[in-house]
Amino acid sequence: MVRYCVTVEYDGTDFCGYQRQAQYRTVQAELEAALQRLNKGLPVVSHAAGRTDSGVHALGQVVAFDLPAWRHDLVTLERALNAHLPKDVAVREARVVATNFLPRFAAQGRCYRYQIYPAPQRSPLHHRSAWQVWPPLVLESMQEATVHLLGRHDFATFGTPPVAGGHTVRTIYHASWQYLNDLLVFEIAGDAFLYHMVRNIVGTLCQVGRGELAPAVVAEYLAARKRAVCAPPAPPHGLILWKVLF
Amino acid sequence: MVRYCVTVEYDGTDFCGYQRQAQYRTVQAELEAALQRLNKGLPVVSHAAGRTDSGVHALGQVVAFDLPAWRHDLVTLERALNAHLPKDVAVREARVVATNFLPRFAAQGRCYRYQIYPAPQRSPLHHRSAWQVWPPLVLESMQEATVHLLGRHDFATFGTPPVAGGHTVRTIYHASWQYLNDLLVFEIAGDAFLYHMVRNIVGTLCQVGRGELAPAVVAEYLAARKRAVCAPPAPPHGLILWKVLF
Repeated sequence: MVRYCVTVEYDGTDFCGYQRQAQYRTVQAELEAALQRLNKGLPVVSHAAGRTDSGVHALGQVVAFDLPAWRHDLVTLERALNAHLPKDVAVREARVVATNFLPRFAAQGRCYRYQIYPAPQRSPLHHRSAWQVWPPLVLESMQEATVHLLGRHDFATFGTPPVAGGHTVRTIYHASWQYLNDLLVFEIAGDAFLYHMVRNIVGTLCQVGRGELAPAVVAEYLAARKRAVCAPPAPPHGLILWKVLF
Repeated sequence: MVRYCVTVEYDGTDFCGYQRQAQYRTVQAELEAALQRLNKGLPVVSHAAGRTDSGVHALGQVVAFDLPAWRHDLVTLERALNAHLPKDVAVREARVVATNFLPRFAAQGRCYRYQIYPAPQRSPLHHRSAWQVWPPLVLESMQEATVHLLGRHDFATFGTPPVAGGHTVRTIYHASWQYLNDLLVFEIAGDAFLYHMVRNIVGTLCQVGRGELAPAVVAEYLAARKRAVCAPPAPPHGLILWKVLF
């Protein structure tokens, strides 16, 4: 057996998240079904860099799995997998990795994007992957608030640990807002993220952008270490797991 | 009655084009159904700046229609229409226009975008609105070929007139290629376009980009004035009616 690793892109709209769940359509189940077809019908176990919630997209999820050695080149492996995958999932950048490689533990960081469509009316071309927000947000206040997130902090206010009782300290390498054409895009990179952490952060920063909270309140929220003080999360469909860093 | 005009955005994936056709789902039919609901059930006739083919999208289609004077503000009119429209169509920028205003005749020009996703594997986040092309295209050759299209020419090679026997001379104001993130985007603006003209031009320019045609061949194609010499059209799903110019 050889361990392979692929980058996985998906439109999360019609999925109940990444992780396999009985009776629900998930990205992992589609991927493992396609792998099974390449493996003469035998089940294949896959290991992802992280889970994503229902409705969340990925441009750069990373998944490893074992298959008997593939006789053709790796682009052909990608193409064979994509032929068995539905339209809303695809793989690329297949590579051979060490037999003990696990993306979740090997990853040095994750980068997410959150897309906001700032307009009074909804957009049919953006509605699958951007949150429509109106009236307009004050970008300067949001940038100012964002700076408080940089570095190593206890993010207990902004999310729950993936393992019950796990610690809630995370390091944010980078976080910023910019306009990309007609979208307002938040990019955030860190060593790891708590559940709902990016959406909770975006929800809070949008309250700042609407003038409901002062930018400095983000520092107070961090210091509080209580989920209860946080703003409601931004909806899942604006969130994209952009890249896993190794 | 007051004549209103709106900008209409749609994801063309699940439509059989803009123009109403019995038995098929069209943008015009959805729009007129929504207008009828605002008009106490009475039918409303609408006038668009142009038709788009099955699968083609629009960011900035323009449509005019008559309604009894609207008592609220124009943003509320947009919102009322959007509440009756399906997810893949929406209006914005409602305004009052002269009672004889017809977008098709008032328009001074149209701007289209064609989006190419240059990659060996398909993209779930782009598959609705970009054409996947591989191997990579040589951008310099395509730019060189594109220059031949600028100005006033007989485009009979690249399309058919909307009215049988109509003339095929059109003026191209601007045409260029650029990378926007991971997409290769063609932008073309002109006074008007023949049927399938943008898709036929993109199909030909991609043959140039693949090295199958020399850039100067575009000038010969124009001079030939024969549909038969043209390359096959690029598929509809990469095309977006970007803006109508008044």
